[in-house]
Amino acid sequence: MRKSDKTDLPARLSAILGPLGYLSAPDDCARYVRGARYGEGQTLAVLRPDSHEQLQQVVAWCAAHGQALVLQGANTGLVAASTPDASGRYLVLSLERLRRHIVVDPVNRSVEVDAGVTLQDLNAALEPHGLFFPIDLGANPSIGGMIAANTGGARLIKYGDVRQNLLGLRAVLMEPAGAVLDLMTALRKNNTGPDLKQILVGSSGAYGVITRAVLQVHCIPRQSATALVVPRDQAAVLQLLQVLERDCGEFLSAFEGISGAALQAVLQHIPAIANPFAAEGLPDYCVLLELDSSAARERSGLDLEQLLTRTLEDLFGEVIDNAVLGRGQDLWRIRHAISEALRHQGKLIAFDISMPRSALVEFRSEALTLMAARYPWLRVMDFGHWADGGCHFNLVWPHSAEPPYQAGLAEEIRTALYDLVVLRHRGSFSAEHGIGPYNLAYYQRYTAPSSRRLAGRLQNLLDPQRLLGLTWFGEA
Amino acid sequence: MRKSDKTDLPARLSAILGPLGYLSAPDDCARYVRGARYGEGQTLAVLRPDSHEQLQQVVAWCAAHGQALVLQGANTGLVAASTPDASGRYLVLSLERLRRHIVVDPVNRSVEVDAGVTLQDLNAALEPHGLFFPIDLGANPSIGGMIAANTGGARLIKYGDVRQNLLGLRAVLMEPAGAVLDLMTALRKNNTGPDLKQILVGSSGAYGVITRAVLQVHCIPRQSATALVVPRDQAAVLQLLQVLERDCGEFLSAFEGISGAALQAVLQHIPAIANPFAAEGLPDYCVLLELDSSAARERSGLDLEQLLTRTLEDLFGEVIDNAVLGRGQDLWRIRHAISEALRHQGKLIAFDISMPRSALVEFRSEALTLMAARYPWLRVMDFGHWADGGCHFNLVWPHSAEPPYQAGLAEEIRTALYDLVVLRHRGSFSAEHGIGPYNLAYYQRYTAPSSRRLAGRLQNLLDPQRLLGLTWFGEA
Repeated sequence: MRKSDKTDLPARLSAILGPLGYLSAPDDCARYVRGARYGEGQTLAVLRPDSHEQLQQVVAWCAAHGQALVLQGANTGLVAASTPDASGRYLVLSLERLRRHIVVDPVNRSVEVDAGVTLQDLNAALEPHGLFFPIDLGANPSIGGMIAANTGGARLIKYGDVRQNLLGLRAVLMEPAGAVLDLMTALRKNNTGPDLKQILVGSSGAYGVITRAVLQVHCIPRQSATALVVPRDQAAVLQLLQVLERDCGEFLSAFEGISGAALQAVLQHIPAIANPFAAEGLPDYCVLLELDSSAARERSGLDLEQLLTRTLEDLFGEVIDNAVLGRGQDLWRIRHAISEALRHQGKLIAFDISMPRSALVEFRSEALTLMAARYPWLRVMDFGHWADGGCHFNLVWPHSAEPPYQAGLAEEIRTALYDLVVLRHRGSFSAEHGIGPYNLAYYQRYTAPSSRRLAGRLQNLLDPQRLLGLTWFGEA
Repeated sequence: MRKSDKTDLPARLSAILGPLGYLSAPDDCARYVRGARYGEGQTLAVLRPDSHEQLQQVVAWCAAHGQALVLQGANTGLVAASTPDASGRYLVLSLERLRRHIVVDPVNRSVEVDAGVTLQDLNAALEPHGLFFPIDLGANPSIGGMIAANTGGARLIKYGDVRQNLLGLRAVLMEPAGAVLDLMTALRKNNTGPDLKQILVGSSGAYGVITRAVLQVHCIPRQSATALVVPRDQAAVLQLLQVLERDCGEFLSAFEGISGAALQAVLQHIPAIANPFAAEGLPDYCVLLELDSSAARERSGLDLEQLLTRTLEDLFGEVIDNAVLGRGQDLWRIRHAISEALRHQGKLIAFDISMPRSALVEFRSEALTLMAARYPWLRVMDFGHWADGGCHFNLVWPHSAEPPYQAGLAEEIRTALYDLVVLRHRGSFSAEHGIGPYNLAYYQRYTAPSSRRLAGRLQNLLDPQRLLGLTWFGEA
């Protein structure tokens, strides 16, 4: 078969995949060409291999015939990396049927898992062993997608990101066509040459098709303590973080800043949620704190609620002005309701930035000044994971605002903020969403030429025909 | 200047480096050409740049002139990767003078550090901030060397390895000649394309010269508890580990198995150390346990000694037969004395292997059987980090043994054990020592062709002339 000869594509691929594995009717394809929070693309067909062998054959065929693919797990990504563009050039390779294999090793505290398994299904399989995979996200992605995006989540400060919990990996490559790169070890210590799996982590699927992984998992916490705390001012947020890391170090599992504006939006639009600070009105800023531990209270003497109470008591009047200790579930509902609440307020310009923790206060102050001076009609409704430097400096453009929403101006605002984050504070314009068509221009703007050159040479090595995914990491 | 024209090498390099930076007298070079535990090589000169600019110039000059380099930090490596071979082809590029820059960011809990800084000097600079870099090693390596070998150490289970604590990195590349790859961010969340610094971690210096890094650091523990425990049998060691992870999860900082033979060697050869099990004689096997926490006892209610005592009490008679709770320092002295003690017993054949924890018991039993059947004159004196799957299955060949020590036979024994570890138990033949001339043949034996091919293509990309280091990761 020659590379240009794609006329037998439907026949050949549907022969490999069978009727459930090869979808080409537009209705069948619809949900695969539309992303979680962005527009629609075009595809000739969706490929849904049912086995590793099928997947390998499909990749080999596409590599041999110059057929481009976009990889899709649970299609929860936010940067348009998992759906085809409008060109019609891409087939969708969905891994959703590659989800049979979940093998728990409780003694090794690890699990072998197919790439198409979702986070929820993985945790359901781990739960009987008292174990869980601690990457805590708002969505329910596939494990392959989580590796390709190196997701972090709200509890990174305690449990690390996907990379830090990845022991092994298997991938199918475009070059050599359909070759398997088998790095499926379950080892915590293994320094036998370069750790090749690291190349595929956070690569947005551009370097190879991740098909299976070995993950380190953790013991389910036996106790936790949660509080919503009002720091005296922004500097006090960082003081509070330092005290907690020093005095409650191993237990600090979340430290989520919430601006008064974001809290107000939640209370306004989500009727089921009441103001936890009812008597005192709304604070300018608050922090959702969580400690957790797998140590049982009786056995260890450790009482996290008591520890948190005592720690906060000492800070009253100096570092913090108020605190509500509550049921974790109730306080987390506030945090989880923010995104939805903000959408009610107008057009959302969302950010997924991060920076050194020591820069967060200065950045926020500068960003608020910038917004007030240049874009006074925007409402800043920020929140963020201070402990890992993450910040969702989200902006709402009210429907009634003057000027009305303009995509071009939104882009200018986005760039102004990214410049502040990246150029001034050496931060990141994509803390955990990864890179895709949605933010590729920013990758090119902020990534040093030496890095782009190397990333592009790597991509040329692994996908010389540029068939895999929509993201080119090399020089423009 | 042409590539082949190296006649002006001494003049040119000494002009860049000055008299302290360019050593060529054999006496001056002696300590740079001899490794920590292996033989001596040859070099024309040792290059000791005093600044990043000098280092960059030197690398650029060597790349342009086809001059091979071997990188050296504190020269504590165990696989001969940091000293020249006998060919005389390599100059030594020592980073020991690149050690001025140590900038602590207590709020970000991170530190920026030059590659030549030693672990001890780094910890001395962190200590006033209540912080430390928790990779716990027997040696005092340089930070650059620790990154190049991705060291793990005795407390990996709590604090992770170097990779898991590496936030940023800067390297000088051979291609483009002397180019700086600047990845010096201090971010915990940053998913803006492939994480290029990962390529250099654990690469034995073959992919580039690491010159500076940003490390995540941790709060110094405020309390700890240590015990030496006698498990009922080998299966009970893993049961004990699981109970401790479940009930004392966040605190478990070390779990070190020590065989009776290794303990006996310590007691025999290190007079200052007394038998902690004096009354009961020597156990067949024991485990050194450590819990630590940054939470103060009074504030948190957490009492690690009490927690450890209670946890062990419940296991008495079923999982464990005996336990000594002691001053951590005293019990760790036993562990740290093993290597020296073993040397007194004869010629040492040391191992640095690892495997899934669930394989450790079976492996040990099989390995003991193998040794008894085929090499009965050897004494097995094993110990290891069970919690991270690490195992030093060390063998002593007594001076008086029949047959007398033969290097070829030692090699056969080594291979037989590695086969058992890697081929049967999917383990590693180099858990934390990395790859160098000393074990390169094993890299070739046990690494899949697809991995070697990719690692070699990467190396060709970054060092097309193969000038950097003694290790070629590609196909033989």
